[in-house]
Amino acid sequence: MLLLPCTPCFEVPSAVTPRWPYSARLAGKKVLIVYAHQEPRSLNGSLKKVAEDELCRQGCTVTVSDLYAMDFEPRATRKDIIGACSNPEFFNYGVEAFDAYKKRSLARDIMDEQKKVQEANLVIFQFPLYWFSVPAILKGWMDRVLCQGFAFDIPGFYDSGFLKGKLALLSLTTGGTAEMYTKSGVSGDFRYFLWPLQHGVLHFCGFKVLAPQINFAPEIASEEERKGMVASWAQRLKTIWTEEPINCTPPWYFGQ
Amino acid sequence: MLLLPCTPCFEVPSAVTPRWPYSARLAGKKVLIVYAHQEPRSLNGSLKKVAEDELCRQGCTVTVSDLYAMDFEPRATRKDIIGACSNPEFFNYGVEAFDAYKKRSLARDIMDEQKKVQEANLVIFQFPLYWFSVPAILKGWMDRVLCQGFAFDIPGFYDSGFLKGKLALLSLTTGGTAEMYTKSGVSGDFRYFLWPLQHGVLHFCGFKVLAPQINFAPEIASEEERKGMVASWAQRLKTIWTEEPINCTPPWYFGQ
Repeated sequence: MLLLPCTPCFEVPSAVTPRWPYSARLAGKKVLIVYAHQEPRSLNGSLKKVAEDELCRQGCTVTVSDLYAMDFEPRATRKDIIGACSNPEFFNYGVEAFDAYKKRSLARDIMDEQKKVQEANLVIFQFPLYWFSVPAILKGWMDRVLCQGFAFDIPGFYDSGFLKGKLALLSLTTGGTAEMYTKSGVSGDFRYFLWPLQHGVLHFCGFKVLAPQINFAPEIASEEERKGMVASWAQRLKTIWTEEPINCTPPWYFGQ
Repeated sequence: MLLLPCTPCFEVPSAVTPRWPYSARLAGKKVLIVYAHQEPRSLNGSLKKVAEDELCRQGCTVTVSDLYAMDFEPRATRKDIIGACSNPEFFNYGVEAFDAYKKRSLARDIMDEQKKVQEANLVIFQFPLYWFSVPAILKGWMDRVLCQGFAFDIPGFYDSGFLKGKLALLSLTTGGTAEMYTKSGVSGDFRYFLWPLQHGVLHFCGFKVLAPQINFAPEIASEEERKGMVASWAQRLKTIWTEEPINCTPPWYFGQ
């Protein structure tokens, strides 16, 4: 395998791509990792780091939005609209954000994240499951960044979502064990909690969704097992670009 | 119906309760409304207000946590732990929050919310659906307030959750229409997105869950229809204390 420097990124002219080896063909692919963990030495931190390393090694350009380090604002408020609102008498966040997107008057941090998403071929979300969902700081990223006009319109959602052509993948850790997250387990099949995130957020915006990477209960795993979780993620990433997306419809989640 | 002043609340000695009329029997019941909308004149604002009015009229004590007005912090960070961490070398939010809860050294705003939950017989969450879930500011309330030790322990969850004996109810508005949120609609049955919230959060903490109050697509409804939504919520609240909770298990959400 070619070992490519991570920054600046190795650029491959697309015309010659087919004759190059696998790793070089991936050069030029852009990946955004939206990462939500407070502790760099956590398993989530290791999973983020190994993804960065492996994808850089492939020649991809990798950008990380480290939400806690950025102190990312999760609240969707009037402050997201720079200047006057279209209706100063009655604040409707969705309407105002749509309008501000068109006028390029959204808050700087939102526009920065939108640029990263726009440039990415693949967006990886790396987070610990909080209450069957993403931590609030990452929910805020979704609420604020994926606004109407940028990520979708009405019409212009699901298979017509504006982020179509891009891939997305949820990489997460859980507190509960794999047994708890089965159809007959107390927490139900893990696919049940993925529905709002993979279908309601990612598919809605047009993303093709790759199979989730779920590491169950790392806190009660041995050091050896945790190393295995990191290694198996790195291994998967070696061929991530050859993967077929899941069929993001109810049968994948709930069976027939 | 007795018209009771809202503050201070009408207190009924429990010993005499059975002989009193319905509205007076409810006096002494405590309700917490956790409210997440930026605009007081929104439909969510009206639904919150009518609930406050109706429940006060019944003689209940009603407390409102108006999250945007409070500028409620959604991020789960080191700042939530006052003083030293149990492990200063490696920050694990769940572990530290559990420890701080036991030592009464959680951030003031978390302890304030926990006190409100502890005192409540019923918690109503009033919010617009953002991405098949709660807005980040409300997700942050769940992430930070419902910590281990306060809302659950391991073991001590689902039917043994520490908030057992309390009722909870999601009252929400959607952007999509009722037709979109059906089994064959593009967004799937509305019960699918309720699973993480009602089962993964509320049931996990021991709450008995009352049927959700869902107002579909108020933004494309007429003024008359929106008034009907408010009136029907007020009407339902008149007999809310006689309602049976849902059976919060997979069949309710996904069928057999």
